[in-house]
Amino acid sequence: MLTAPALAALRALFGDRASTAPAVLAEHGQSESLVSAGPPDAVVFPRSTEEVSALARWSAGHRVPLTGWGAGTSLEGHALAVAGGVAVDFREMAAVLEVRPEDRLVRVQPGITREALNRELRTTGLMFPVDPGANASLGGMAATRASGTTAVRYGTMRDNVRGLVVVLAGGEVIRTGSGAPKSASGYDLTALFVGSEGTLGLITELTLKLTGQPEAVMTAVAAFPSVAAAVDCVIATMQMGLTPARIEFLDAETVAACNAHSGLTLPPAPQLLVEFHGHPEGLAEDVRRFRDLAAGFGASGLDWAAQQEDRTRLWAARHAAYRAILASRPGAKAVVTDVCVPISRLAEAVEETRADIAASGIPGPILGHVGDGNFHAILMVDPARPEEVATAKALATRMADRSLRLGGTITGEHGVGFGKLGLMAAEHGAAWQVMSAVKAALDPMRLMNPGKLVPGQP
Amino acid sequence: MLTAPALAALRALFGDRASTAPAVLAEHGQSESLVSAGPPDAVVFPRSTEEVSALARWSAGHRVPLTGWGAGTSLEGHALAVAGGVAVDFREMAAVLEVRPEDRLVRVQPGITREALNRELRTTGLMFPVDPGANASLGGMAATRASGTTAVRYGTMRDNVRGLVVVLAGGEVIRTGSGAPKSASGYDLTALFVGSEGTLGLITELTLKLTGQPEAVMTAVAAFPSVAAAVDCVIATMQMGLTPARIEFLDAETVAACNAHSGLTLPPAPQLLVEFHGHPEGLAEDVRRFRDLAAGFGASGLDWAAQQEDRTRLWAARHAAYRAILASRPGAKAVVTDVCVPISRLAEAVEETRADIAASGIPGPILGHVGDGNFHAILMVDPARPEEVATAKALATRMADRSLRLGGTITGEHGVGFGKLGLMAAEHGAAWQVMSAVKAALDPMRLMNPGKLVPGQP
Repeated sequence: MLTAPALAALRALFGDRASTAPAVLAEHGQSESLVSAGPPDAVVFPRSTEEVSALARWSAGHRVPLTGWGAGTSLEGHALAVAGGVAVDFREMAAVLEVRPEDRLVRVQPGITREALNRELRTTGLMFPVDPGANASLGGMAATRASGTTAVRYGTMRDNVRGLVVVLAGGEVIRTGSGAPKSASGYDLTALFVGSEGTLGLITELTLKLTGQPEAVMTAVAAFPSVAAAVDCVIATMQMGLTPARIEFLDAETVAACNAHSGLTLPPAPQLLVEFHGHPEGLAEDVRRFRDLAAGFGASGLDWAAQQEDRTRLWAARHAAYRAILASRPGAKAVVTDVCVPISRLAEAVEETRADIAASGIPGPILGHVGDGNFHAILMVDPARPEEVATAKALATRMADRSLRLGGTITGEHGVGFGKLGLMAAEHGAAWQVMSAVKAALDPMRLMNPGKLVPGQP
Repeated sequence: MLTAPALAALRALFGDRASTAPAVLAEHGQSESLVSAGPPDAVVFPRSTEEVSALARWSAGHRVPLTGWGAGTSLEGHALAVAGGVAVDFREMAAVLEVRPEDRLVRVQPGITREALNRELRTTGLMFPVDPGANASLGGMAATRASGTTAVRYGTMRDNVRGLVVVLAGGEVIRTGSGAPKSASGYDLTALFVGSEGTLGLITELTLKLTGQPEAVMTAVAAFPSVAAAVDCVIATMQMGLTPARIEFLDAETVAACNAHSGLTLPPAPQLLVEFHGHPEGLAEDVRRFRDLAAGFGASGLDWAAQQEDRTRLWAARHAAYRAILASRPGAKAVVTDVCVPISRLAEAVEETRADIAASGIPGPILGHVGDGNFHAILMVDPARPEEVATAKALATRMADRSLRLGGTITGEHGVGFGKLGLMAAEHGAAWQVMSAVKAALDPMRLMNPGKLVPGQP
């Protein structure tokens, strides 16, 4: 609860853009996943870096935590105010500030979503390639170090954020990075803030790298006789040095759900959905090589879609897979979890996970961005049955433990939030204390998204 | 000076691998550039992470600074013990620990050089692509966030280090990163240590990303009617979405020096040296597109070398350019400086720099990795004439100021060391204090390479 003087001071700063209306609070206490917390004490809608800086001064003066809110699509509770305080909703800071086509850069406010950004870029011949599936905000994507289907070729947010404006705890404003394509000038603060989940400061502006829209695109879907054959085909593809723009795995259950939900007619078998980008001459050879490789792993039905509408239909179905899977068990909620392993251990990781899920009795299709060793399980539970929820959470924990045993990480792209806080010590050991030391140096009063990512009480 | 008890304790740990021999100290007090400092008080040659950890405990106990030493090729004094103390020479930690071809990873000790690493990888079909010219150590390259000719396609050390083992001040050992291709698990400590110049800890092991050796390679050199035409051709190449593996600019003076030193017979005009990697089909189209583009900018003599020996001769000459330029003024020493600007400002930056150098009377050829906006001036001075040295240093400072004015950075790849310490506040403003806060959190006694990168006395 905010004190009366704190609330009065907040209202003095933001007027009716500081809300304590129950519906507004409730909206900012929800999450896409089963990770849950209470609502924040207030929600503010800032319009500028200066306003966020004033808010951070207010926060320090009244000892009230701040938690950023983008599109609310995170899966590990990052945007939930677990210690109460103020949710900082960036929906009114969603502008494209500057497009610099000659440098392939764009400067944006954090609240813009990736689809809105790409709509604005359409006529420039450029695009922002990172695609986590959800229509997330760019600020949230940077804070979570998001990636998705295209990371195998274009990288994650780590690779595509050139610089930031950040409001620190207490209100200081810093700029990180520069307009130059590279720099050896001091600590890489951009990389420190990307993936820091709002625990070190609030991102109020991003300079992003853009990529040319591909001249030619070829997409194919292929069925494989087994999970292992599909995954081994991915491994061979990467080892051959082919660079697909996307290479997605869908297990038979995911395919069946997509068929039912999106009107596809794919055989209900493990499938790879693959896409190449390039100039037509190079692409023809990529496609030939992938076709030969996939045939060697028993692929069937390999059908290349060069037409935009066919590709759009396939990728729309892939992006709808989460909803399709949820629809396959009416009333279910999902524990959605992700891990990422070395590509050499991918088949093993997927097979062990499948067996573990099968033994649990919980429906849990597997799909993922397997070109970089990253896959998800969507564990469907009846939220009214606590024993199912507990079983699903235990499965997710075992997936993370398995990933660590195989040399991987507890999360490839969903992040830590507080959903995976309990797994951090196992992954990082003493390095987790280093993260703590960095947090303490930048936010000694623990006002920036407390309760997330680093050890200790909120 | 080390106290007698400190020296005795050091000898107890390292035996005759702790040296205070004047010749050994003098060797570790030298630098490739005009940035200079006195020798360290002692030099040690550790053989394991455990030994480096013991050394860091000794350092904290006796309050003696530690400064890492790889191949001694840095240009801004990074490896010089400006506050005295111990130089930690990694030459006896230069092994390849593990090659994982299926994951395209290699685990190495920090003292191995890039040429030695690539020799060991030759039969695997893989390579480590980052090439700063000098045969630097991988530990040093990571600490400096090095890049070089191939960064335009393969990225810098930022992009090619997957994980580290680091000994912190006081002796704690941490691991950063994982074997997975990506992770959203906590702060990106790998990125924090890459480029930290030994000021946060000593790197004792690196896991590096490898790249497939290209199936086909085409290299060409082309003369242009003016600097602006050559640079504009680079800008157009990048904007067209062509991805050369290298695209280097040499001004007429550099070309003349290379002709004289390496027996080339290039016309003494601004030249681009460009290379494409790929499969033969894709490459043929890249080459065709670049040829058409270059012709539009008045390129002449564009001659493609598909033969390994011709390519080797060209790149050997490029890598010898620094020595070639120095040889063009016998007895000279060089102030070698680098900046990096947005590609849209590259022509302007190069032209203004050329005019400034010309007006100074100091010979200063310009060359660089222009595909990512990065270029160097090699300012040749008679070291016995302090006014020449002062003029050259003032030119270098104006280059950095100009780069900032154009939206760039004070160093694209050479790093800060103490040569560019005085320029950090201008580039980073309040963010430099954030770097300081991180340093203070991880190294409160300022024992790790003091006097570098962050504000304050050593």
